[in-house]
Amino acid sequence: MEYLVRVDTGTQNISYDPVPEAYQDLGGRILTARILSDELKPTCDPLGKHNKLVFATGLLAGTAVSSSGRLSIGGKSPLTKGIKESNSGGTLAARLAQMQIKALILEGLPENTAPFILIIEPEGSRIIPAEAYQHLGVYAFTEAMLEQYPGASLACIGPAGERLYNAAGVAITDTDGCPSRYCGRGGLGAIMGAKGLKAVVIPEKGKVPLAREQDFKEALKRYTQTLKDAPGTQAYRDYGTAAMLDHVNGLKGLPTRNFSQGVFEQAEQINARAMVTNISNRGGEGRLSHPCMPGCIIQCSNVYPGPDGKTLVAPLEYENMVLLGSNLGIGDLDDIARLNWHCNDIGVDAIETGCALGVAMEAGLAPFGDGRAALDLLEEVRLGTPLGRVLGSGSGITGSVFGVRNVPVVKNQGMPAYDPRAIKGMGVTYATSAMGADHTCGPTARGEVDHTSPGDQADLSLKMQKIVAMFDCTGLCLFCIGAVAPHPNLILELINACHGWDKDLDWLNSMYLEMMRLEHGFNARAGFTKLDNRFNEAFTERKLPELGTVFDVPDEELDRILEFVEDKS
Amino acid sequence: MEYLVRVDTGTQNISYDPVPEAYQDLGGRILTARILSDELKPTCDPLGKHNKLVFATGLLAGTAVSSSGRLSIGGKSPLTKGIKESNSGGTLAARLAQMQIKALILEGLPENTAPFILIIEPEGSRIIPAEAYQHLGVYAFTEAMLEQYPGASLACIGPAGERLYNAAGVAITDTDGCPSRYCGRGGLGAIMGAKGLKAVVIPEKGKVPLAREQDFKEALKRYTQTLKDAPGTQAYRDYGTAAMLDHVNGLKGLPTRNFSQGVFEQAEQINARAMVTNISNRGGEGRLSHPCMPGCIIQCSNVYPGPDGKTLVAPLEYENMVLLGSNLGIGDLDDIARLNWHCNDIGVDAIETGCALGVAMEAGLAPFGDGRAALDLLEEVRLGTPLGRVLGSGSGITGSVFGVRNVPVVKNQGMPAYDPRAIKGMGVTYATSAMGADHTCGPTARGEVDHTSPGDQADLSLKMQKIVAMFDCTGLCLFCIGAVAPHPNLILELINACHGWDKDLDWLNSMYLEMMRLEHGFNARAGFTKLDNRFNEAFTERKLPELGTVFDVPDEELDRILEFVEDKS
Repeated sequence: MEYLVRVDTGTQNISYDPVPEAYQDLGGRILTARILSDELKPTCDPLGKHNKLVFATGLLAGTAVSSSGRLSIGGKSPLTKGIKESNSGGTLAARLAQMQIKALILEGLPENTAPFILIIEPEGSRIIPAEAYQHLGVYAFTEAMLEQYPGASLACIGPAGERLYNAAGVAITDTDGCPSRYCGRGGLGAIMGAKGLKAVVIPEKGKVPLAREQDFKEALKRYTQTLKDAPGTQAYRDYGTAAMLDHVNGLKGLPTRNFSQGVFEQAEQINARAMVTNISNRGGEGRLSHPCMPGCIIQCSNVYPGPDGKTLVAPLEYENMVLLGSNLGIGDLDDIARLNWHCNDIGVDAIETGCALGVAMEAGLAPFGDGRAALDLLEEVRLGTPLGRVLGSGSGITGSVFGVRNVPVVKNQGMPAYDPRAIKGMGVTYATSAMGADHTCGPTARGEVDHTSPGDQADLSLKMQKIVAMFDCTGLCLFCIGAVAPHPNLILELINACHGWDKDLDWLNSMYLEMMRLEHGFNARAGFTKLDNRFNEAFTERKLPELGTVFDVPDEELDRILEFVEDKS
Repeated sequence: MEYLVRVDTGTQNISYDPVPEAYQDLGGRILTARILSDELKPTCDPLGKHNKLVFATGLLAGTAVSSSGRLSIGGKSPLTKGIKESNSGGTLAARLAQMQIKALILEGLPENTAPFILIIEPEGSRIIPAEAYQHLGVYAFTEAMLEQYPGASLACIGPAGERLYNAAGVAITDTDGCPSRYCGRGGLGAIMGAKGLKAVVIPEKGKVPLAREQDFKEALKRYTQTLKDAPGTQAYRDYGTAAMLDHVNGLKGLPTRNFSQGVFEQAEQINARAMVTNISNRGGEGRLSHPCMPGCIIQCSNVYPGPDGKTLVAPLEYENMVLLGSNLGIGDLDDIARLNWHCNDIGVDAIETGCALGVAMEAGLAPFGDGRAALDLLEEVRLGTPLGRVLGSGSGITGSVFGVRNVPVVKNQGMPAYDPRAIKGMGVTYATSAMGADHTCGPTARGEVDHTSPGDQADLSLKMQKIVAMFDCTGLCLFCIGAVAPHPNLILELINACHGWDKDLDWLNSMYLEMMRLEHGFNARAGFTKLDNRFNEAFTERKLPELGTVFDVPDEELDRILEFVEDKS
C-alpha cells in the first residue's frame, strides 16, 4: 500500500495515511499541485505555518525504468509568492517510492528554531535532532550523514535554507552520494528551513511492487531500446547539457553580463568542448558521463576536475555555466566550477544566484569577469551578512535594493540561460509558466523555428508545456522527451503494468490540462493576474544589442495560453 | 492663466501649457490621480522613463485661506507598485500657485546621472546643475540654496532619493525655510531621484488672482472664524499631533517593539506632556506652536530643542514619535528627535523607516530601546551600505531579507502609528486605501466607536475616506476637518469666489467618488486585486497581547468599500 506521510513540524507528530482514491493516479508535479490546491490557502505566508512542503514521487519512481526518478518538491514560493514545483534527479524519489511513500508532506511550524532530521525507514519514520549541523554546508553535512548512514539517500538544505533565503534550494544526493542534485528554484529550501527540517534521510533501499510483472518487463525492454537508440541520448552522454552553449550563443541569446549582451566573446573557453577537453586531459576524479539516478541510460551528468584532478564540482551543467559564467562575464571554466560548488554547498539555486550576482555586478559591487570577486560575494551569502542576505533573496530584491532596473525576472524569479529577446518561445514559457521564469516548463530552444519571430512562439511554447507536463507528472526526466514523447504508449504501458491500471492515452495526454488548471488556479487565488505574465521594460524596451530585438510577442498571444487553460477546465 | 508645466528630464525641455478644460476644476490629490491615469501605463517601471512625478496644488493654494497650501505629489510608487499621492504642508504649493502653475510634471529619464535643480520664476523656469550637491543632506542643501536664493521655497530630496530608496520622500520648506515638511510616503523621492532632480526652487512670492474678490473676503472671514472657534484648533496648537499618543496608548493600540505590543510602558516619557514640558523648560529655539504654511491659524507644529536649547528637530510629530519611539522600544524623546532629524536629513520617510528599524531590531540587528544603535543604523542608510540600502528599501524588503515574518505592511507600505488590531477602522483604511497602509486616507482613531469591534469599522472608514478626499483635493489640511467638514459650504464659497465658479455642494461632496475610481482603477490596471487589500498573518493571526485581538474585520466588509466605488463609477 502507498502512503501519504505527514510530518507536523509543530508537534513533531508523524502520520502514515493511505493515499486517497483521488490522488492515486497522480504523480510528481501534478500531485504537488493537487495537494497544495486542496490544502493551502493560496494567500498564506510562504514561511508561515499554513504553507506546506510536499515531496512527491513520479508514477514510475523506484522501478527499473531509466530516468524515472525525478523528485518533485512543491510549496507556495517565498520568491514568487505563487505555486512552485521544482524537480530534480538523484536517488530520493526512488527511495521514497521503495518505502511505499507516494508523498511526504511537511506541515505546521516548529515553536523553537532547533533543526531536526527526518529518518525514513521501512518500519516507519522518526525525528532526530540536528543542532550539531546548524549552518553546515551541504557537502560536509552529507558526508557526516553518510558516515552514520552508509549508502543513504538524502535531501537536505544548506545555510541558505536555514537562513530562509528566497533563493534557497533543496539538495538531493545522486548515485555516488554526492548532494549536487537540486530542487533549486523558487526558495523551496527556505520553506524547509522555516519548518526546521535540515534533512530527510532514507538509509535503505526497497522494492516497488509490480502489479503485472511480465507486462512490465516487456514494456521496459521496448522503452529502454527506444531510449538507447535515440540520437539525443548519445549526445547528452557525450557533452551533457553543455552542448546547448554554442547553440544559444549562435542564436545570439546567451545571457552575458547581466543580460546586457547575447553573445559572449569568450564562449569557446566555457563551452562543451572546453569542458570535455578539461575533463579528458585532467583525468583524476573527472568523469565525462555519469548517471544521477540509478539505472539511467542517458547519463548526461559529469564530474569536473581541477588541474590537479580533484573534483571542482559535479556536475557542471549548462544553466550554471551560463548564469555563473557569461552572465558574470567570466570566461574561466574553473572559476565557474568553483562558484557552482559554493552555490551547491551554501544551498542556493545557482540560476537565481547567478542572476543576482549579475545584477550586483551591474550595481558595481564587483567587476564583471572577476571570478575571485564573485566568490567573495558568495562568501557573504554563506555567512549571512546583510549583502549576502540581499543576494540570497534573489535577483529581484537585489535589483530593488541596489537601484538596478535591468533585472532578469518574471514573477520575481530569475531567468535561466536563454535570453527571451533572442529565443522568444522561451520567453513565452517564462512569461506564462505559473512558476515564474523557468526554462523547464516549456523549452523551445531546440525547436526548428525562427526564434526571433514573435508570431509562432506561443504555439511552440504551449506544445512544449504540454509535453513537459506529461513527463513532470510521471516523474520522467525531460531528457527522454526526444526519444519517448513521439511514443507515449511506451510510458503508458509501463505505468499500467506497474500499477495494474488500464489507463488510455487520453488520460496521459490530458494530464497537462488539469495540472495547468491547478497551478494557474492557485496563482489566481493568490492574487496573480495576467499582468504577472509579462516582462519588465529591461526586456520589452531595451534591445539585445546583437540582434536589435526586444521581447515583442504580443500580450494577446501570452494571454491565449491561459485562456486555453481556462476554457478547457 | 494657469499652466501645466512639463519638464522632460531626458531633453531638459520645459513647456508651459494652458490647463486643459477637463483638469480645471481638479486640484491636489485628484489632479495627480487624473494626470497619472491619463498619461501612465500603470504597469510601467516606477523608476523608468514612463513614470511621471506630478506636483499638484489645491484649489485654494496661494490664497490667504488658512491651511490651504497642501502640496500633492503623485506618481507610480516604487514601494507599492501602485498609484501614490503624498501631500504635505510647507510653502511650495502656495508658491507654485502664485507662479500660475497648477501642476508640475516631471517626465522621461535623463541619459546621464548628473543631478539638476529646477528654478521656477515668474518669467519662466530654467535648469541649473546640481553636481556640487550630490548626496548632500536635506538640511545642508537647503541652507546652501537659501543662501543663493534668500526667502525661496523649495522641494528637494536627500541622499535617499538620489540612491533610489523605496522609502525616499520629498522634503518641502516651511515658513522658516526649514525643510522638514515631507511628502514622505511611497518612495516619491526615488522617482525624483531617478529623474535626476535634486530640487525645485521657487525664489519669489506672487499673487493668485481672485475672480470675485469681495465674495472671497467675506467667505474667508466666515471660514477663519469657524476655524478659530473650533475646540480642536486650540488643542492642536497646545499639543500638536502628539496629543494622540496617550489616546492611542489608552486604546492599547500604540505600535510598540515592531508591533508586538500595543501599550508602551514608557509612554509618559514620550507623550505630549513630556514634549511640552521639555519645550517649555528648555526654552532656547524651542517653540510650542508654529505654522508650516503661511497664514495658518492652527499652528499644530513645533520646534523641539535639546537640553542646550538648540533645535533637535522641527517639528516633532505623533507618527514619528511612535514609529521611531515606542515601535523601537525607545523611551527617550531626545533620542527620538535625533532619529527624526536624521530621517529628514537623509530624506527617508520616517514612518517607513521606523517600521524598517523595528523589523531590523526584531531580526537582532540592534537591541530594542537602544537609541544610539538606531542612529548607527540610520548612518548606514545615509551612507548607502548594503544594510543601509535594505533599510532604505522599506520594512517589507527588510523583513524579506532578514527572514522576519512580522512585517507591518499593507501593499508593501509600512503602517503608521495605530495598530489595526486595536483600532480596526484604521485597519480598514490601511487595507482598502489605494495607497497602502496610510492613516491619512481615512483616520478613525478619534471616532466615538468601540474600536475593537469588527462590525461598523468599514462604514466609519469609508465615511472618513470620503471626507479626507474632499480636503485632499481642495488642498486643505486634514486638521481643519473637525471645524470645517460640518460646514462644507464654507469651502465651496471660497472656491467659487476664488475661481469665479458656481459649483454646488454635490460637486464638492462627490469629489471622492471620481478620485477613488481613478486611484483604484489605476491599481487594477497595474495588477492589483482585492487580495491586495488584506493584512498578513502577523495581524490576522498573531494576537495583540494587551487586547487578545487580531484584525478580524471580514473580507466582505473590506471588499464592500471597493464595490461601492465600482458601483457608483
